[in-house]
Amino acid sequence: YEIDPELKGSILINAGLSLFGYFATVRLIPVASRYVLRRNLFGYDINKKGTPQGSVKVPESLGIVVGIVFLVLAILFQFSNFTADSNWLVEYNAALASICFMILLGFVDDVLDVPWRVKLILPSFAALPLLMAYAGHTTIIIPKPLVPYIGIEILNLGWIYKLYMGLLAVFCTNSINIHAGLNGLEVGQTVVIAAAILIHNIMQIGASKDPEYQQAHAFSIYLVQPLLATSLGLLSYNWYPSAVFVGDTFTYFAGMTMAVVGILGHFSETLLIFLLPQILNFLLSLPQLAGIVPCPRHRLPRFNPQTGLLTGTNDGTLVNFFLRLFGRKTEKSLCILLLVFQALGCCFCFLLRWLLAGWYK
Amino acid sequence: YEIDPELKGSILINAGLSLFGYFATVRLIPVASRYVLRRNLFGYDINKKGTPQGSVKVPESLGIVVGIVFLVLAILFQFSNFTADSNWLVEYNAALASICFMILLGFVDDVLDVPWRVKLILPSFAALPLLMAYAGHTTIIIPKPLVPYIGIEILNLGWIYKLYMGLLAVFCTNSINIHAGLNGLEVGQTVVIAAAILIHNIMQIGASKDPEYQQAHAFSIYLVQPLLATSLGLLSYNWYPSAVFVGDTFTYFAGMTMAVVGILGHFSETLLIFLLPQILNFLLSLPQLAGIVPCPRHRLPRFNPQTGLLTGTNDGTLVNFFLRLFGRKTEKSLCILLLVFQALGCCFCFLLRWLLAGWYK
Ligand SMILES: [Mg+2]
Ligand SMILES: [Mg+2]
Repeated sequence: YEIDPELKGSILINAGLSLFGYFATVRLIPVASRYVLRRNLFGYDINKKGTPQGSVKVPESLGIVVGIVFLVLAILFQFSNFTADSNWLVEYNAALASICFMILLGFVDDVLDVPWRVKLILPSFAALPLLMAYAGHTTIIIPKPLVPYIGIEILNLGWIYKLYMGLLAVFCTNSINIHAGLNGLEVGQTVVIAAAILIHNIMQIGASKDPEYQQAHAFSIYLVQPLLATSLGLLSYNWYPSAVFVGDTFTYFAGMTMAVVGILGHFSETLLIFLLPQILNFLLSLPQLAGIVPCPRHRLPRFNPQTGLLTGTNDGTLVNFFLRLFGRKTEKSLCILLLVFQALGCCFCFLLRWLLAGWYK
Repeated sequence: YEIDPELKGSILINAGLSLFGYFATVRLIPVASRYVLRRNLFGYDINKKGTPQGSVKVPESLGIVVGIVFLVLAILFQFSNFTADSNWLVEYNAALASICFMILLGFVDDVLDVPWRVKLILPSFAALPLLMAYAGHTTIIIPKPLVPYIGIEILNLGWIYKLYMGLLAVFCTNSINIHAGLNGLEVGQTVVIAAAILIHNIMQIGASKDPEYQQAHAFSIYLVQPLLATSLGLLSYNWYPSAVFVGDTFTYFAGMTMAVVGILGHFSETLLIFLLPQILNFLLSLPQLAGIVPCPRHRLPRFNPQTGLLTGTNDGTLVNFFLRLFGRKTEKSLCILLLVFQALGCCFCFLLRWLLAGWYK
């Protein structure tokens, strides 16, 4: 592997900033917790109802700390990586604008509880700066085995490709938001996926010699490292038993950041395979989301305060599906099981890429 | 006057969008008021203490509506003005990122009441994307009468110029925030300054034949028109007697947007003359802000519920200074007087520019 030393330097500076961001997050969350509690931004832990822990006021929407630390890191990083390459700056600033708008919307939602129609429309706007700035190709490479049938090797999709990217952004933000309800699950899945993205980026940079391809993956690293570091800081408080809740602020922020790196790093298909559990959860949720089956306010498992175990309900979520499949579990072990499943999905994706490399495209 | 028809078209599309934004703001504020009240985001009108109106819960930080409508307009406008000119896109996206970060910080401040040290540091970060993206000159033109003494006509200040712009952004956001305390004053001053900026931009576009100069002023128009329109929508609720309060969300947003247009439109000196009353207020406030003179939580005039008149206190603000100078006034007439003063300052600026044109540079 030979990597441009300048690129390596930028990645290392970014890693250093991210490390700093981890400690800043860990330091700031207890402070911010006092502030949100003072404003009555708290929740009760429904999966602990009936135990003493179930009546503790848990500070809510601490994702705002992660979001602001992330933005400050991302802004500071511009200094070290200042280039005259304005294409890079366009995409980077558009990424900042989209992510920032999403954090704002998430926090407004946490504070004001906006109706779900607004929740669906506004994230689409947040994705627009990104799509406008997207300077990459809008083509897909036809898989080699299909080339003889279709007759062309490259298909230019134009605005359909941009539409696909917009939908991807909306899907990412919402799918992480609805794969939730257990202590540590929202942040845990983000950490697993961000780690997988980071590994993927590093592998791709090492394997390629095309500087433009390397740049695209480096772009992704610059945003994923701070995401991973600040999320780990949050996870140390959000892990079972949660001392803080993350709020829509975090899920929107994490989802949008992933969409941004997938789109501007040009590996959105790989990202979608990383998101396999989220896709399964979305498909399971579809009947209730579409209103075919009645949908309660929360679609959580039933908690038994005597045994401390969760029982799956008939609500269509992956959490309930796993409980019905594997039997009753404690909240902590169920969360670990789901995160292991997420990690296995990522490994499967790496295997798939390795198997299909060369043959597929 | 002959203006490029394409430029004219873009400005008209932007004006249309802004008009739509005005109606959207007027429509959304009552809805949002219910949401913020539910979350106990309200304030009592201190200048009406002792009257029935003084005990009404007035919904707070409705600037969030203006901010979100503005961002949506600014994002949508990118579509109509899509150019391959990536310099334009860098600056536009950086502007979006800076303004959005500022709205986020303002709203977080309104909800959580962050300490003042944080308030001073974080806006500086919000201004950074803007400075990084600033592609314009960092030179100042030496006034003609001074050229013989200094010996050069153009002085390149480099990073000092960028520092100046950063301080300008911090000054704008904070100076509008502290020139406040009367119904309609925060929004009113924004409307007057935004109108002055718009007039200045139109005059400059008409007077110049240099397409780059025209583009810089058009850039400013694209952001100032939505600011003016959405602020007018908010003013219709915030005017005496205020049905809603605007919060730090609005003052931060308005200040940052003005700084952005002043910097990227390359007329920051003119902007500073438009901000004359804010500078006066800042100078009057300096002893208390610096801690030399004790500073109470609010530095408002004293209200007499019997007469309905305000009396100036010794706190160093322009509001109190005007009351001491012109005698007791009602809140409404004092606000009008201050806005007239602001408008006269803008007229003075236009006169000054006209007198000095040619002679000065
Ligand atoms: Mg919510
Ligand atoms: Mg405040």
